[in-house]
Amino acid sequence: MASLRGNALIGQSGGPTAVINQSLVGLVERCVEHRDIPSVYGALNGIKGLMEERLIDLGREARDELEKVALTPAAALGSVRQKPTPEAAERVLQVFEAHDIRYFFYVGGNDSAETAHLLNEAAVAKGYDVRLFHVPKTIDNDLNLSDHTPGYGSAARFVAQAFMGDDQDNRSLGGVKINVVMGRHAGWLTAASRLARRHEDDGPHLIYLPERAFDRDAFCNSVEEMLHRHGRCVVAVSEGVHDASGEVIAKGTEVDSHGNIQLSGTGALGDYLSNLVKERVTAASRVRADTFGYLQRSFFGVSSEQDALEAREVGRAAVDFATSGDVTHGSLSIQRGDAGGRYQPVYVVNQLRDVAAATRLVPDEFILGDNDVTEAFVEWATPIVGALPQPGRLGRHPVTPRL
Amino acid sequence: MASLRGNALIGQSGGPTAVINQSLVGLVERCVEHRDIPSVYGALNGIKGLMEERLIDLGREARDELEKVALTPAAALGSVRQKPTPEAAERVLQVFEAHDIRYFFYVGGNDSAETAHLLNEAAVAKGYDVRLFHVPKTIDNDLNLSDHTPGYGSAARFVAQAFMGDDQDNRSLGGVKINVVMGRHAGWLTAASRLARRHEDDGPHLIYLPERAFDRDAFCNSVEEMLHRHGRCVVAVSEGVHDASGEVIAKGTEVDSHGNIQLSGTGALGDYLSNLVKERVTAASRVRADTFGYLQRSFFGVSSEQDALEAREVGRAAVDFATSGDVTHGSLSIQRGDAGGRYQPVYVVNQLRDVAAATRLVPDEFILGDNDVTEAFVEWATPIVGALPQPGRLGRHPVTPRL
Repeated sequence: MASLRGNALIGQSGGPTAVINQSLVGLVERCVEHRDIPSVYGALNGIKGLMEERLIDLGREARDELEKVALTPAAALGSVRQKPTPEAAERVLQVFEAHDIRYFFYVGGNDSAETAHLLNEAAVAKGYDVRLFHVPKTIDNDLNLSDHTPGYGSAARFVAQAFMGDDQDNRSLGGVKINVVMGRHAGWLTAASRLARRHEDDGPHLIYLPERAFDRDAFCNSVEEMLHRHGRCVVAVSEGVHDASGEVIAKGTEVDSHGNIQLSGTGALGDYLSNLVKERVTAASRVRADTFGYLQRSFFGVSSEQDALEAREVGRAAVDFATSGDVTHGSLSIQRGDAGGRYQPVYVVNQLRDVAAATRLVPDEFILGDNDVTEAFVEWATPIVGALPQPGRLGRHPVTPRL
Repeated sequence: MASLRGNALIGQSGGPTAVINQSLVGLVERCVEHRDIPSVYGALNGIKGLMEERLIDLGREARDELEKVALTPAAALGSVRQKPTPEAAERVLQVFEAHDIRYFFYVGGNDSAETAHLLNEAAVAKGYDVRLFHVPKTIDNDLNLSDHTPGYGSAARFVAQAFMGDDQDNRSLGGVKINVVMGRHAGWLTAASRLARRHEDDGPHLIYLPERAFDRDAFCNSVEEMLHRHGRCVVAVSEGVHDASGEVIAKGTEVDSHGNIQLSGTGALGDYLSNLVKERVTAASRVRADTFGYLQRSFFGVSSEQDALEAREVGRAAVDFATSGDVTHGSLSIQRGDAGGRYQPVYVVNQLRDVAAATRLVPDEFILGDNDVTEAFVEWATPIVGALPQPGRLGRHPVTPRL
């Protein structure tokens, strides 16, 4: 396969992450130094800006500012949630042609992989020669054929630190605390709450993933049991939990063009479960719910170093694959290599069609019963999330009562 | 006034903070080295554990574990929300006498200052000689006669970093984002969202404090105006906002023994405002609300260094005042000294009765119109919160359209 000469274009799509701009900068730095790529452009707001020809010249960005952008959460190019119609794909190809775009990198989750796949099919059908790659990012960690995704480690770290602190808070004042964690279909991020548990009596005491049907009665019984055992109860629950019939427990009403129902940006599920416990669990005197919401993917100042490093590297690897001449299109992924027992990320290209719109659920080996995750999950997650802060705990040597 | 020999007792009360244990450790380290204090005890769960004689010997805690405890959010002794009845105060004095408690330090907010005041009145009436001090902590920053309170700087930092990231998130995907911030009567913490705004187009674009009446129509008009000006809108709103008649906009139903209505631990206000914007603001296509909730006071790993330092120091200062022989009771506070124009905290004792159950609102000089705060507030808050991370921003050099 001959090497291809032409400009590169980068777009960002879907929900942002704390490290998505690391991938952007990784892509830019590799493109600018490649002799076959005269210019590297960015499309503002993904394919929406692409169709409107709102392109910027990323090669003209100052190097030190790019480094600051890499450390800034959310999509510096602006993002979009939009699935291309055949007409839209046609328009995208016109823009490609007008600007001699021969390398296109779309940074996003499984919906963005679907977009990349549709654009690639259109390009192949039209005979337009372009190297078209999906670069992964999602805090949901639910991309098919990946060990994990860039963005997950940082969001998982936020969730773990949030539960570490919230468990101390609940320990101080008692009662039931329910925390709703992002994750529409897959419970990866909710499972990360488990990393906060060190001692047997630490929360979260109950962890509900969308991979298991949520039973209201069983939930209330488990909360009651934890109240008896620990005098308090901290619950981690995925925003996407649903009952045995597949109906989500509480939801908003909006649906996007990929068919996703709005779950985040509302306190509905937390408030629903909170009221359920107040009504049904007699031992529960103080019940509170928080919905962690967008802070999980956007909080400025909490990220996993390993996640940031891999997000940068997966951007670089995408350019290396695209310019290698070995493969014309695909979806980058991170696999877990073996470095003598030490954790090591390996960057691999999968077929776009195998990643597009598919969802990788938490496997059975990581799920413990109906309301917990396994030690195997903790071992899997730890190198991605990094070392967590170490809480202190008083010895609490009792003073002999005198009254 | 003669010096007093006897044991010291420490309790923690009210909502925890990220640095309340710094004060605990500051108190312990000064007590253990004082010749007039043979033992330093802790009461579990504040006056509740005190009455039940659930005391622990803090002098037996390992020094290195105490340092870890100092860095751990929330109340290591356990906390409580309880206003003492006359019978309860009598019981507390019995426990004091039984364990020869001559120094009592109660770490908490204005409700805890009220508890300390009531206990002190009871001790004076009974002629029981005890040095009784309230040690301040509250993320609400609403203690009377203080420049600021330990705990506020760290919570304000969390809020600022949350808005910094969330503003990037909103910039990526557009729409209206409403974030509900803690603060029942005073808007100090909500005002801290302003620290996230650097460029003129940065959010939060609207900031609503409980010090100003919240008008639903004016709110919707302002959101619409910001959508026209910036194509998006990020709103910071205090959980305690109320209308001109004094009625809170949305609330839970619980009331504690100090008469406080439950506002946190529910998404009610965020969801209400979100629906209001969806219904009334035609330009609003995507509306989301997050309630930051307990993470603001408990998140493990985000704190202000200055705040942590002052929280430690105010604990030490409380012991110094109590053992000085100059004053028998009081409430510690932080004032702002003048070190040649440089920020410098000064520790001062106020009367318990002047701090008890009083609330210090955000002054007019820090409030700008109905939906913003002033530069003077930013100058005031910056030394307490510390330097924030520096976001990067693409230059966005446009590529000339060709179609």
